[in-house]
Amino acid sequence: MQNLFDEILASIAAPDEAAMEAACARQLSLAKPPRSLGRLEEISVQIASITGRLYNRADRRRVLVFASDNGIVEEGVASAPQSVTLAQTINIARGLTGVGVLARHYHSEIDVIDLGVNADFSFPGVRNEKIAFGTKNFAVEPAMTREQALAAIGSGIRAVQRAKDEGVEILGIGEMGIGNTSTSSAVLCALTGLPAEAAVSRGGGVNDAGFARKKAVIDGALAAWKPDPADPVDVLAKVGGFDLCGMTGAFLGAAAMRIPVVIDGFISAVAALCAARLNPLCVHFMIPSHASMERGYAVAMDALGLKPMLALDMRLGEGSGCPIAFEIVSAALDVLEHMATFSEASIDDGYLDEIRANERFQG
Amino acid sequence: MQNLFDEILASIAAPDEAAMEAACARQLSLAKPPRSLGRLEEISVQIASITGRLYNRADRRRVLVFASDNGIVEEGVASAPQSVTLAQTINIARGLTGVGVLARHYHSEIDVIDLGVNADFSFPGVRNEKIAFGTKNFAVEPAMTREQALAAIGSGIRAVQRAKDEGVEILGIGEMGIGNTSTSSAVLCALTGLPAEAAVSRGGGVNDAGFARKKAVIDGALAAWKPDPADPVDVLAKVGGFDLCGMTGAFLGAAAMRIPVVIDGFISAVAALCAARLNPLCVHFMIPSHASMERGYAVAMDALGLKPMLALDMRLGEGSGCPIAFEIVSAALDVLEHMATFSEASIDDGYLDEIRANERFQG
Repeated sequence: MQNLFDEILASIAAPDEAAMEAACARQLSLAKPPRSLGRLEEISVQIASITGRLYNRADRRRVLVFASDNGIVEEGVASAPQSVTLAQTINIARGLTGVGVLARHYHSEIDVIDLGVNADFSFPGVRNEKIAFGTKNFAVEPAMTREQALAAIGSGIRAVQRAKDEGVEILGIGEMGIGNTSTSSAVLCALTGLPAEAAVSRGGGVNDAGFARKKAVIDGALAAWKPDPADPVDVLAKVGGFDLCGMTGAFLGAAAMRIPVVIDGFISAVAALCAARLNPLCVHFMIPSHASMERGYAVAMDALGLKPMLALDMRLGEGSGCPIAFEIVSAALDVLEHMATFSEASIDDGYLDEIRANERFQG
Repeated sequence: MQNLFDEILASIAAPDEAAMEAACARQLSLAKPPRSLGRLEEISVQIASITGRLYNRADRRRVLVFASDNGIVEEGVASAPQSVTLAQTINIARGLTGVGVLARHYHSEIDVIDLGVNADFSFPGVRNEKIAFGTKNFAVEPAMTREQALAAIGSGIRAVQRAKDEGVEILGIGEMGIGNTSTSSAVLCALTGLPAEAAVSRGGGVNDAGFARKKAVIDGALAAWKPDPADPVDVLAKVGGFDLCGMTGAFLGAAAMRIPVVIDGFISAVAALCAARLNPLCVHFMIPSHASMERGYAVAMDALGLKPMLALDMRLGEGSGCPIAFEIVSAALDVLEHMATFSEASIDDGYLDEIRANERFQG
């Protein structure tokens, strides 16, 4: 696994400047005040810089959902019993959950990958890449070994490779795992140096006592295991989860294989930050979706230097925000390709020159 | 026109409480932590309260684009020549502009209504309801008579009636008119009592001198014509535009005919505020879309008590944000109707009871 990991990290390349410039030039030629379509313009330029082509599509869409259990739930930090991870992992594959309905609505596929659900089961549509029956309780011992972390990262990379081989044009990264707002908060605090108070909220709806425990458990584990913030794999292994590792691998894989990748909510943003700390170029391949209500989401996005484009007060997880973003990306690509230019729209060139002089387009 | 206006204002009724409660109850029964789909849940409840039905669709979609010229451009407040209004009105009908591409992408119709373009023309797809060849220059005299304002409001109401008759399920309100960020700013300042400085930005990209003129012209007109903030028709007539009047009529009509109506950017939000000041019940029928970059947008939305759901840094107008929002509304309706309930998802009732005890759903 170390080999795959090293190869992928080394193969991540910079954005394609020529394609980016061509897309900027095309946006400037379209019959509108420069930048008046804001982030729709930026997205079209970003995706050109990813694929190296001026015109792109986001018709073939896939949400990767990494499912796993977390030993930390033994500490009473979660509102739901661990059995919900299994039930909802199956329900996601059945298309019954939030991401299921939204993926259908937005014509998106879902690839569900079991990295550590605490049950011996098989179900159609759930890919068994189980590393263990859940992680260890990180209040007592590190969550997993470094080898296990690298194996889970490898699963994420391979999920992207499958998508690439099958012609997927845009990816979203989601998860299912009771307790994973605790693991994500711990990873975020380890990477940023913040105390739990600054990055933790109630997750799926834990009560007051559980919320206090959640913060104490995280601060305690960071003090006990001293994860190295310069080594995200160490952080993931000590206080993370298999799902977070898989998601981190998927963000790395998307960057290496040059597929635009949408961040869902809090947990997805923390995995994105792990990938960005492993290789800062990864950020160029990421597209934010909705502003999660979890407190740590804003912390992670600030660290990434990204801003969400949807304010929907969502905090479901599962990758549920990704399909909504896929359609906005697709619309942005349509604008670049199909909107009329000033010359096609026969608008007086004096107007064009004047507004160009007033504002400079920055892609 | 006074009769139609009075009838419509009087016919606006409150949200349907029974349908709203049924939708809230259904949301609570779905297999997710309560409120975890945030505004998607709220939108589904809102639309039930509008139509009186639990399940609804937003498949048949239409953007109403009101086009008109504004005499105030004589003062040098706009970045583009007046001829652009005509060119872009035709281009919108040709499907070449930003709203054209986005409407096609999101399977939305466009109804273009000419209320005052300063040109004698006819073009397929542009409905001629012209009141005059542009308004008067409100720096010199009131923009229009009260009768003209009511006539333009009537055009907006009739546009909604056509949509209703043709089975349209959701509307968006847009505009085309060089100079209409100046008229909208003036109307907003008149309604809120704010000075121009607090509500004016550069519109389509005016230069420094034009920007200073824009603010001075607005403050001067408000001092000279003293529009009555308690009488939005007076405000619209003195410092507004035919497009703003038509849009205000459309918001009133949507409320009266109980069709959900999407606010686009700044100008659309100001028209929405005019409608809300005429009858506060109108706000229940409105759905915000994107946060416009125009300074006055936030002022208008605060006055309406609404928050945008898209952060796309757009400021094109034309109703271009509406199609993006239509699809989110449609997704929200799909979630309400098609997501599995806890019992369908076979998730343990103990979990359900616990998270219900921790949080109360508020629709």
